[in-house]
This record gives sequence, structure tokens and C-alpha cells, in this order.
Amino acid sequence: MSDAMTTDLYEVTMALSYLREGMTRPATFSLFVRDLPPDRGFLVAAGLEPVLDYLHRYRVTQQDVEVFASVLGRPAGELAPLLGLEFTGEVRAVPEGRVVLAGEPLLEVTAPLPQAQLVESYILNRVSHQTAVASKYARCVLAADGHPVVDFALRRTHGPGAAYDAARLSAIAGLAGTSNVAAAHAEGIPAVGTMAHSYVEAFETEEAAFRAFARSHPGPVTYLVDTYDTRSGVATAARVLRSLGLGPGCAVRLDSGDLGVLAFQARSILDAAGLSEVRIVASGSLDEFAVQRLVRAKAPIDVYAVGTRVGTSADAPYLDSAYKLVEYDGRPVMKLSSAKATAPGRKQVFRRPGCTDVIGLAVERPPAGSVPLLKTVMTDGRRTAERAPLGTARQRLLADLAELPPESRRIEAPTAPRAGLSARLTALAERVRGQIRQRLVSG
Amino acid sequence: MSDAMTTDLYEVTMALSYLREGMTRPATFSLFVRDLPPDRGFLVAAGLEPVLDYLHRYRVTQQDVEVFASVLGRPAGELAPLLGLEFTGEVRAVPEGRVVLAGEPLLEVTAPLPQAQLVESYILNRVSHQTAVASKYARCVLAADGHPVVDFALRRTHGPGAAYDAARLSAIAGLAGTSNVAAAHAEGIPAVGTMAHSYVEAFETEEAAFRAFARSHPGPVTYLVDTYDTRSGVATAARVLRSLGLGPGCAVRLDSGDLGVLAFQARSILDAAGLSEVRIVASGSLDEFAVQRLVRAKAPIDVYAVGTRVGTSADAPYLDSAYKLVEYDGRPVMKLSSAKATAPGRKQVFRRPGCTDVIGLAVERPPAGSVPLLKTVMTDGRRTAERAPLGTARQRLLADLAELPPESRRIEAPTAPRAGLSARLTALAERVRGQIRQRLVSG
Repeated sequence: MSDAMTTDLYEVTMALSYLREGMTRPATFSLFVRDLPPDRGFLVAAGLEPVLDYLHRYRVTQQDVEVFASVLGRPAGELAPLLGLEFTGEVRAVPEGRVVLAGEPLLEVTAPLPQAQLVESYILNRVSHQTAVASKYARCVLAADGHPVVDFALRRTHGPGAAYDAARLSAIAGLAGTSNVAAAHAEGIPAVGTMAHSYVEAFETEEAAFRAFARSHPGPVTYLVDTYDTRSGVATAARVLRSLGLGPGCAVRLDSGDLGVLAFQARSILDAAGLSEVRIVASGSLDEFAVQRLVRAKAPIDVYAVGTRVGTSADAPYLDSAYKLVEYDGRPVMKLSSAKATAPGRKQVFRRPGCTDVIGLAVERPPAGSVPLLKTVMTDGRRTAERAPLGTARQRLLADLAELPPESRRIEAPTAPRAGLSARLTALAERVRGQIRQRLVSG
Repeated sequence: MSDAMTTDLYEVTMALSYLREGMTRPATFSLFVRDLPPDRGFLVAAGLEPVLDYLHRYRVTQQDVEVFASVLGRPAGELAPLLGLEFTGEVRAVPEGRVVLAGEPLLEVTAPLPQAQLVESYILNRVSHQTAVASKYARCVLAADGHPVVDFALRRTHGPGAAYDAARLSAIAGLAGTSNVAAAHAEGIPAVGTMAHSYVEAFETEEAAFRAFARSHPGPVTYLVDTYDTRSGVATAARVLRSLGLGPGCAVRLDSGDLGVLAFQARSILDAAGLSEVRIVASGSLDEFAVQRLVRAKAPIDVYAVGTRVGTSADAPYLDSAYKLVEYDGRPVMKLSSAKATAPGRKQVFRRPGCTDVIGLAVERPPAGSVPLLKTVMTDGRRTAERAPLGTARQRLLADLAELPPESRRIEAPTAPRAGLSARLTALAERVRGQIRQRLVSG
């Protein structure tokens, strides 16, 4: 399936119409999130890198044209104006890892109108999904309060592609590793994981399973101890570890039951066996809320493994995002629909200390003490810089989180800062709104 | 990224250990959903076709072995036992489109233990995700009560792959079309969609936009009428349609505001203009709950477009699924962990009229009047039948929905039938549980 086919049909019908009408002047579309989901005090910008890859390679091929014609039930000749179309425009965007707020453009595309329109579906998909998931992982790291967190989401994301994305985003958010081999390898993330219940069950006894695993994998091991009975499983693990002379670097994993209570019991059993260096890993339906409860209860859990609920951002699996035309051929435009009105013009976000942001026009001079968030990342359809390593995005996030007010970093009932609008943007929106209303009345 | 790399690391460490221990006898894993999410009275089995494609092509290559070694920090030679491993086993599964309930195996894999283990992550991912999403779309079709529903989910699914899956599943569920060009083309689904707000805004006036669209696309058109003011937009659409002599096959789309109220107003304006054949399409944050409210209010909406909330199954974005070892080398096994206990043995689901199901052992004779749900779909690593067209899955779903009790088809607060367990399965579970407890006590 080609990139150009991964589109909503209406992008194709609109682009064709623009070409036929000769409407190929520069257009700017702005991608932003209207409102944050409940229980989000901030968002983490993500998805830009795959978008730039996509724009760089975007090209409408002969096969694409034939497919467009086929699904529209038209002769291929009618779609010919689209053949060979590439993306030759500019992208200004917030780099991955930066904290963003409601209403702030994450990305602005300026390109000949048909191009900027055709790429909408893909861009919106990538940025919305990845920003939602990165934000969820970031909250887990905050909740863990210094304890390592690892990603086990592969088995329940929305397809294997989403699992790869989740693992990559988890690394930006500061997780310490992922179980996803493909992502660990390609993105340079530590790979983690050891055994499932099936492994224990495949042997006649739990002890036989633990001994076999150590035989096959010399070095530190992590034993899953809750297949039959957690306390009994921890005792068996302790016995095997002692008899094999193992300890440092080893761990037991708890995956069911009351993880807080069981962690205290496991710690006692391990300590009594002289295995104070053996760590405890907890997993099973964990998200930032559960992690925070365990951390606050001072449960002796050393590593938290999060999966399903975090990799799918289960409490907020989508963002209320939009990719809106804000300027065409130098003319600022806006939408007035109830509750979905947009602001016109090419924009910039000016960040001041404490994430007290101002959304203004791209042409404005930054207010004193502010830095602009959107950077030019693509011109003439080409990246302006090399892809940054994940660690760079991670550092951006750490710096921005340090600036966020405590109530925005809070796990339970956080409140997000609201960006203000600059005087010039407010005035422009008023003027354009007035012009549209005038046309509606006179029309 | 190869298929074999799309795995949790622990599948690799376990498989390697099984090979080293000579544990390559047949194992059966059973995939089922422990409990249905709230607001689900049934699930729609899905994801089997991509799983069969994956198993058919599964092969651990030299590159995979090197990647496994790299992420484990071991010499590649240690991973050599995995090289060339293919899937040579059997799959018994519930065909796509059939209704399934909590605890019922959707799929059972029987293969040499290392093979059956290695494919866990991918299989769980595909079946869990697709079953969740297919079930959500099916509820939309029920809510629409005969009105066509179409899929607009592409822009907010978890990556473009998930969008493709969503479109395919929407067709199984009975939706009438999708906006996703790639999926429409490849799966033979009608492609739908016309214009966005950006199209209207790119022109000086709404009327100029509507006229241009008709010029570019001869034949019936659908006008988006809420860019500035919905009633004014409908009036403009009516004026343009009349002046162009258009009507039959055309539509207006409402995408914001109180869709019920606006639909009545739009209908009045259109009817007054003699355009009673022009249809009304509604979109914007719709899911089965919103669709049902509009249908019950008898809003004059002809077509419902669902997207974000349905394509992501937003109120239940994952299922509590498991892929559990139930038999190894002829020995039934089970897990006893609190609240996550599993039942041992190779299973079958016997469906009786009214979806009063009994979960039994695969070797049992079907109870009178029942049909077995799991079919053998792969033997020796090869499909036993051609891939069925989507329409076949759709017909299975229709037949099963007709059998479901009304309270399970209900949109608000549905109740799901509970499958019973056969006497033989209950007895086997008791016996295995006793044996494990005995070993724990004596161990």
C-alpha cells in the first residue's frame, strides 16, 4: 500500500478540484489539539519524524492515479493532473519531546494548496496518535518518581506498527527499556523481558522451570513467581537462586493480585533468604495511576512494567486534534462552526518561563524572555536537519517538565496551563471573523 | 522490520530455552478474552486472516538471529538453534465475523512448543485489537437501525496500519463504505467522502466553493455546510444545487453543533427548496451511543459517518485477552494466579440456539442441537482453505446477531450471555488444580 493511497478520499477529490481551478498558490495548514483530555496537564509533541519521512518520499505514482480513478469510478485520465505530484513545501514544527498545550500548533505546513491538502490524513494520524501515547508514557515516568519503568505494550496495541511506535515513544518519555525486539534493535533501546506463565507451566514443577531457565541463560535471571501461588513462587525462586549462587542483577516478577501487599511479602521472603539484592518487578494492568498508588504506599517494587493501558493511552486513546487551513495565497482564513472555531494566520508559540505560553503570528517578534517553539524542519520538501536521536527528544522533555507548574505534572486531576493569544492574533481573528460575517449577511 | 522481530523479547528467551532443554513436543495455546468490557454484550471475532498470513510466512532468518543476539548481548552462535525455525503447526479458530463471548477460545494453536511460544505476541496483538474494533463497529450498525453508516476513522487511529484494519473491520461489521482509499481499493469496499472545511475556506465564498466542486466533479455532490453557519450553508447548498439542476444522489454534511436540531432545520430548508431527494449526512464525534440518540429522536439523518471514537474503540480500546498454554505433550496445564486462573486442555465452543454456549474439550461430542465454533483453519503451517471474502464474515455476523438475545444487542448497558462449562472440562480443571496444589504442598 503506497503512502499516497493512505488518505481519505476527500483529500483526492479536493486536490483534483484545486488543480482544475488553478488554485495552486501557497496554503498554510496548522495542526493543533483543541482541548486536552481529562487527566492530562500537558502533552508531549511526537510523530514529527515519521511525518517528515513521509513528506520527503511522498509521490503520486501511476498506480496511485489508477487506484484513485478506480475507487471514484472515473476514467484514469481524469485523475492525470495528480500524477507525479510531490511535496515541495515547508514544515515548521515543535520538535519531538517538547511539552505543548491546548490550541498550540504542533506543526504548520506551507505548500501549494493541493499538496498541503493531500497530506492531511496521514499527518493528522501520526501526530495525534503519537502525541497521545508519548504523553501517557511521560505521566508514568512522573508517577514512578525515579523508579525505572519499562514498556510491555506490544501484545495489545492497535497492530504491530502501533507497538513499534509505542516503544519508540516510551524511550522519548524516559522509560528504561522495551520488550519489543524490533523497536529495541532499530531505535537502540534496551530490550527487557524473561519468561511467561506458559514457561513455568510447560515444566512439571515451578522449580524445574526456574532451574532450566538458569541453565539456558547463564547470568542474571528474572523469575515470574505468580503462576500458581505468589508466596510459594517467591520461596521457590529464592531457593533456586541461592542454590545456584545467583543474586545480584536477578529479580522476581509479580504479575497478578494485590501487587503492593505481595511486594512486601516477596521482599520479606527474599531478605530472609539473604537475597536483598534480588529486585522486584511489578506488571499487570499498570498505568500511571496504579504506579503512583504503589509508589506512595512505598511498596518495595524496584521496576514497573507498563503495557496495555499505557501503550494504547487507554483513558484517552485519541486527541481532539485538527489540521486546519489558516491562510491561502496570503489571505488569512478561519472556520466559525460552533465550538470548533479556528484562529487564522501562520502562527508561532512563544514560550516563557513556567510554560506561560503566548500563541501569536509567525511574523511577530518574540515577546521579551520568550523562545519560539516552532522551528523550520523542512523547506522545498527536504529536511533542514538530520533526524535527532531519541535522547535529544528525551532531554527536551526533561527540560520542559521542569518548567511545568506542579499542578500540571500531577497524576490525579492535573490542570493544564492555558496559552494566551497575542494582541495581533486576537485582532486578526476579529477582523477575519467580521469579514466572513459581513459576507454571510450580504451573501 | 521482519515478522520474527515483532515479538516480546521473552518469547525468544523462552523458545531458546525450550530448544536447549529438548522441549519440542506439541503444545496447545488458547486465546480468549477473560471478561467483556463494560457496554459490550458480545464480541465479533476478527484478526484471524492476518494471523494466518503471518504464520504462513513465519521464518527466523539469519538477520533475526543476529538481532536477537544483539539485543540480548550474546554471541550470535548462542541463538543459532532458532535459525530457520518456521511455523509447522495447526490452528483451530472461530471464523471472522462470528459472535464470541467471555472465556471462549477465539483461536487455539497446536505446534512444537518453541514455535507456539514465539508467535504469541503477534497473534495476541492482532486478534485483541481487531476483535475490539470489529465489535465497536458492529454496535454502530445496530444503533443506526437500518441507516447506512460509513467509516471516517483514518485520521485518528493508532497509525496508518490501524486505519487500514479499521476500514476492513468496518466492512465486516456492515458499514456501507470507508474514506480510506488504500483499504477501499484493496478490500473492495465502497470509497466515500467529498470535501473538508479547508476546501470551503480556500475560496472567497462558500457559494464559490460549492460551484467549483460541482464543476470539477460532474455528477452528484455532497456539500459540507457548517464551515461558517450551518443554516446559511444549507441555504447556499440548496441554491447552488437548484441552479445546477442537481438533486438526486446529492447530500449535505453536518459536522458540528447539535446534529439532531440542525438536521431538522436542514431538512426543512432543503424540502422548501424542492430538494427532498437531497440527503443529510452527519459526522463529528459520533459513536453508537450518539447514533442511537439521533435515531431515537427521529432526526432526519440519512447517513451516519463514524470515525475517531469507533475506529479506536475509544471506550474500550483493548480487550482483557490472554494466550495461555493449556496442554503440553498431552498433559493438560493451567494457571492458578488470583483472578487470572485458566482452564486446561484443548477446547471447543458448542453453540446452541440463542447463543447459549458451552465451552468443552475439543474431544467431546457436540451436545444435541449445538454446532462447534472452532474450525481447523491451518494444518502443517498451511491454510486449509482460501481466504473468505469480507461478505462471508459479514453474513456470519448477521446470522449470529439474529441469535443473540435483545439485551445483548442493546446499546446502553447491554448484558452478555455467559458461556457454561461442560462437565468434562469442569472435571478436568478440578483434577489439574488438585494435582498442582498437591505439588505445591509437597514441594
